[in-house]
Amino acid sequence: MHKEFRLALIQMKVMETKEASVDRAVLNVARVSEKGAEVVVLPEMFNCPYETHLFSDYAEEEGGYTWQKLSEAAERNKVYLIGGSIPEREEDRLYNTSYIFDPKGKCIGKHRKIHMLDIDIVNGQYFRESDALSAGETPTIVETEFGKIGVAICYDIRFPELSRYMVSKGAGVLIFPAAFNMTTGPAHWELLLRSRAVDNQVYTVGCAPARDYDLGYISYGHSMVVNPWGDVIGELNEDEGYLVGQIDLEAEQTIRDQLPLLKHLKKEKYTL
Amino acid sequence: MHKEFRLALIQMKVMETKEASVDRAVLNVARVSEKGAEVVVLPEMFNCPYETHLFSDYAEEEGGYTWQKLSEAAERNKVYLIGGSIPEREEDRLYNTSYIFDPKGKCIGKHRKIHMLDIDIVNGQYFRESDALSAGETPTIVETEFGKIGVAICYDIRFPELSRYMVSKGAGVLIFPAAFNMTTGPAHWELLLRSRAVDNQVYTVGCAPARDYDLGYISYGHSMVVNPWGDVIGELNEDEGYLVGQIDLEAEQTIRDQLPLLKHLKKEKYTL
Repeated sequence: MHKEFRLALIQMKVMETKEASVDRAVLNVARVSEKGAEVVVLPEMFNCPYETHLFSDYAEEEGGYTWQKLSEAAERNKVYLIGGSIPEREEDRLYNTSYIFDPKGKCIGKHRKIHMLDIDIVNGQYFRESDALSAGETPTIVETEFGKIGVAICYDIRFPELSRYMVSKGAGVLIFPAAFNMTTGPAHWELLLRSRAVDNQVYTVGCAPARDYDLGYISYGHSMVVNPWGDVIGELNEDEGYLVGQIDLEAEQTIRDQLPLLKHLKKEKYTL
Repeated sequence: MHKEFRLALIQMKVMETKEASVDRAVLNVARVSEKGAEVVVLPEMFNCPYETHLFSDYAEEEGGYTWQKLSEAAERNKVYLIGGSIPEREEDRLYNTSYIFDPKGKCIGKHRKIHMLDIDIVNGQYFRESDALSAGETPTIVETEFGKIGVAICYDIRFPELSRYMVSKGAGVLIFPAAFNMTTGPAHWELLLRSRAVDNQVYTVGCAPARDYDLGYISYGHSMVVNPWGDVIGELNEDEGYLVGQIDLEAEQTIRDQLPLLKHLKKEKYTL
């Protein structure tokens, strides 16, 4: 297993047409691959504006247009590609789904967002994802040449039990394609990524769409990489861009040795 | 049940003799009570320098000198008193124990620190609490006229499962007497208090000794109160002092209604 690798986040704008968004994503995968990225992450709902009434129009079945383009991009650039998420159709249901590809273009896993964003904050964000989408059922951990990677989507990060589960199953990096908004983003985005990192002693990665005030749901941006000590080691602002961060799993192990939280956990004493 | 109350933190220096520390604590309880505090919190190991070889000398059995003085202070000032922590002796064992008193001076609960701080950070803090102390076995939640309050000590905060447990059992405020050090304090103290608050939608309170460079183990200070949205609503620096914060359990419920995390949790899908 390779203990060090370069991971890139692509913080892109979501375009009006699906094809334009996918082109933009694919172009950026090539760009960060030239910079040495070996794992590439796209944002949540990167091929569809984040509005419940649009999900059905943009949705595809597994193996559809976007899936194909991502598979090709992974293979062509020889990268692991955590394909953000897109609306997935299966029979009469829609999901918020992340497809994950290996450097041969093979789909090695998929995550369906488990927790639906149904919130109504006074003077803040209202959203009811469950009006349009169904919830996923299971956590997602994929095997790579860099060890196990956990993938969950946006609101999933709010539930510490899920991150703990992925790490207990061996994940050394947790990746969250996400689209926090202008209420919850400034309040909680960095806090959540940093706290999941510190509590679980893993790298955490959050990848969001660039901010676009023309859309109904405005992404906060600020894609970032946090190391297992809780330091933000790379962060974008709200604009389009990418960042490449170095992941060092030996350093992660050192932190686990020096501050042995995962060993000191006494779950049986406080499990309901 | 009263939905609003004033809570005070006392960030005090630990003195060389136990009696001097206890006097200082008792004096400050009276002082914050005059400011309207109805719940008062003292720091971890407020009557004993935080060094493993001293714990035995300063230790008392339940009902001992410090216990008595705290009980009297609670009754005299008509406050709930979360008595920080002190070294407790029971037979041949020592514990890091917080005694909790009601406004009549009755001891309504005690918490023995569950997780022992055994860490060894290169170029940072070394400490082996388990050389001298035994670990507590159970979470602690006390009933008050302001609802249920969860109490845990310092390193206990690092384990999100424990905070979740206390909140699941109805705690509306989590109180952590603590003494983070000059390595972990700047890195993680605020982050942990804020993230336990946001994840569980509760007020969190951390109360530390004032910083004292003459001691072997140097407390970071920065006692603080965090609201259920994760905002720090009151914070001290490293010096001696106190702060009084307003706790509003109606506001807490509002946040739980608008961003229903506790309802959206799907524990069964990711429990080991």
